Amino acid sequence: MRIQRWFVCLALFTSVLQLRAQDSNVVLVIHGGAASRRDKINTPEWERLSREGLKAAIQKGYEVYKKGGSSLDMIEASIRLMEDNPVFNAGKGAVFTLQGKNELDSSIMEGRGLKAGAVAGVTVVKNPISAARAVMEKSKHVLLVSEGANTFARENGLEIVDPSYFRTEPRWQELQEYLAKPKDRAKITQPHDGMWSTVGAVARDANGDLAAGTSTGGMAYKRWGRVGDSPIIGAGTYADNEAAGISATGHGEFFIRYAVTHDIVALMKYKGLSVQDAAKEVINKKLKVAGGEGGVICLDKNGTVANAFNTDGLFRAHVTRDGTITVKLFKE
Amino acid sequence: MRIQRWFVCLALFTSVLQLRAQDSNVVLVIHGGAASRRDKINTPEWERLSREGLKAAIQKGYEVYKKGGSSLDMIEASIRLMEDNPVFNAGKGAVFTLQGKNELDSSIMEGRGLKAGAVAGVTVVKNPISAARAVMEKSKHVLLVSEGANTFARENGLEIVDPSYFRTEPRWQELQEYLAKPKDRAKITQPHDGMWSTVGAVARDANGDLAAGTSTGGMAYKRWGRVGDSPIIGAGTYADNEAAGISATGHGEFFIRYAVTHDIVALMKYKGLSVQDAAKEVINKKLKVAGGEGGVICLDKNGTVANAFNTDGLFRAHVTRDGTITVKLFKE
Repeated sequence: MRIQRWFVCLALFTSVLQLRAQDSNVVLVIHGGAASRRDKINTPEWERLSREGLKAAIQKGYEVYKKGGSSLDMIEASIRLMEDNPVFNAGKGAVFTLQGKNELDSSIMEGRGLKAGAVAGVTVVKNPISAARAVMEKSKHVLLVSEGANTFARENGLEIVDPSYFRTEPRWQELQEYLAKPKDRAKITQPHDGMWSTVGAVARDANGDLAAGTSTGGMAYKRWGRVGDSPIIGAGTYADNEAAGISATGHGEFFIRYAVTHDIVALMKYKGLSVQDAAKEVINKKLKVAGGEGGVICLDKNGTVANAFNTDGLFRAHVTRDGTITVKLFKE
Repeated sequence: MRIQRWFVCLALFTSVLQLRAQDSNVVLVIHGGAASRRDKINTPEWERLSREGLKAAIQKGYEVYKKGGSSLDMIEASIRLMEDNPVFNAGKGAVFTLQGKNELDSSIMEGRGLKAGAVAGVTVVKNPISAARAVMEKSKHVLLVSEGANTFARENGLEIVDPSYFRTEPRWQELQEYLAKPKDRAKITQPHDGMWSTVGAVARDANGDLAAGTSTGGMAYKRWGRVGDSPIIGAGTYADNEAAGISATGHGEFFIRYAVTHDIVALMKYKGLSVQDAAKEVINKKLKVAGGEGGVICLDKNGTVANAFNTDGLFRAHVTRDGTITVKLFKE
């Protein structure tokens, strides 16, 4: 009888340990955007490519971790791969503006020292996340926009491409279909199609330093130099070693107005909420009430992963210290 | 003896009431930037013009209040007057970029519904604060940048001027002097001269609705399309009817990284701090330690005014419900 009890206790203890290990030994979490099942783009083939893209990107970041890379190195490696992958709305394969251009936004932040960098509206930089990192590390600034940001990237040796590099046929055809629809051109506003394949990553390295980054082509058919939350520190990206690193995706205007990523950090620091509760509070309560669709991935100072989304799906993956990879697209 | 006590109590009660009236019947607070006594621009003549400019702007906003205008109307009226006044670094009289241009940033936010609008890098809009308001009210976006923002302003009937309108001789001469200094042009970074004449305003109207706005020419001799905190919601401007409205001025990069205006609101909502304690916590502790110079003006949901700055001065003014105006430049 005594031995039986002892076994039960041991079994319970072991399962609690396993649960903890699964939740809190995460070194890298990435996302490939929030998605709705109602999207026409949301085909089985697209889901398969997204899943593969996430897996390749998380593996790439994990390789950097295994070689002792910093959290900044990890997220940059993962995001670069997703920017190069046409399935995501970042880098190659970005959506088009109403005028048929690709204007890219990105930001990066490190939790130690709260340093940050960002670019908005760049058109010739192959990997905007690397441009954001260069702004953080090689300038005294945080945010550079448009032509000036292109110039900064050129002067700092980043890989420059012809704007046509970003063009993919499916995205171009979507724009043509959109433009062909009978509507008053003067009143064209952004479509609200519930799909944002922005990419992002949050990492925690062996030193316990957090870093977060986000990259996007922005809203489809955007105009007037519209910039969303992705390049805005406190909206699309935030990292604070005292709380968590966070990357967001969704209807950017709401994420700016609600300062989503900073708000999650503030709820953790000032109200003592867990990273999961803080993320849910902002995404599933505040934003949900306001009508702002999207989600976030988070990694807290203890390596606990969390996410929240009020859309059907949030394309995401994470990897633990021992290399165990989890990829999920919808609520599952 | 009993009557004496009664008088003491009455006197104390009256003085408390007066203190409250002075602090908490404020309907509008404005600023004309943070300043350091070490600036060469900081002459008695400049201080006199700044004081006059603040007084005219607060009077203008108060007139709107007396006519029953909304908090948005009040701050727009005050900020427009400061944009038109060459003594401030906003609108006419803005500082020059390294390439000899004037690139203007502005944002606006209303505390009811957390709606917001902003423009960055506009070059032909006479009053950027009105462009920011148009973005909030006439588009589905929050932030428009560069040429696209100029186009939006044109299409929405805002007053358009030739870029030369913003040029003033003193600011142009400062740029020439700066360029003439022997230095490696490739290594030119922004001067850190401790003076930021950004303008801003926060109002609380008869309905109790808060609104905040900020407008600037940015950092002197900026390059690469640098954008500071002024057009960033949560950094340079925030308003939330549940807490306070805030406008910031200072070394913008720090204000973005610390999400200054949103952080003040978060400290009030989640930690229960007063507006004054929250402002001091961020400006005089967090930013001071980080080396980020500047300040904020705040007006809370009860009409209590507060400010905090870690520079020698914060050029500021406020007006109470009954029209009593206070103008201050330094710690006095």
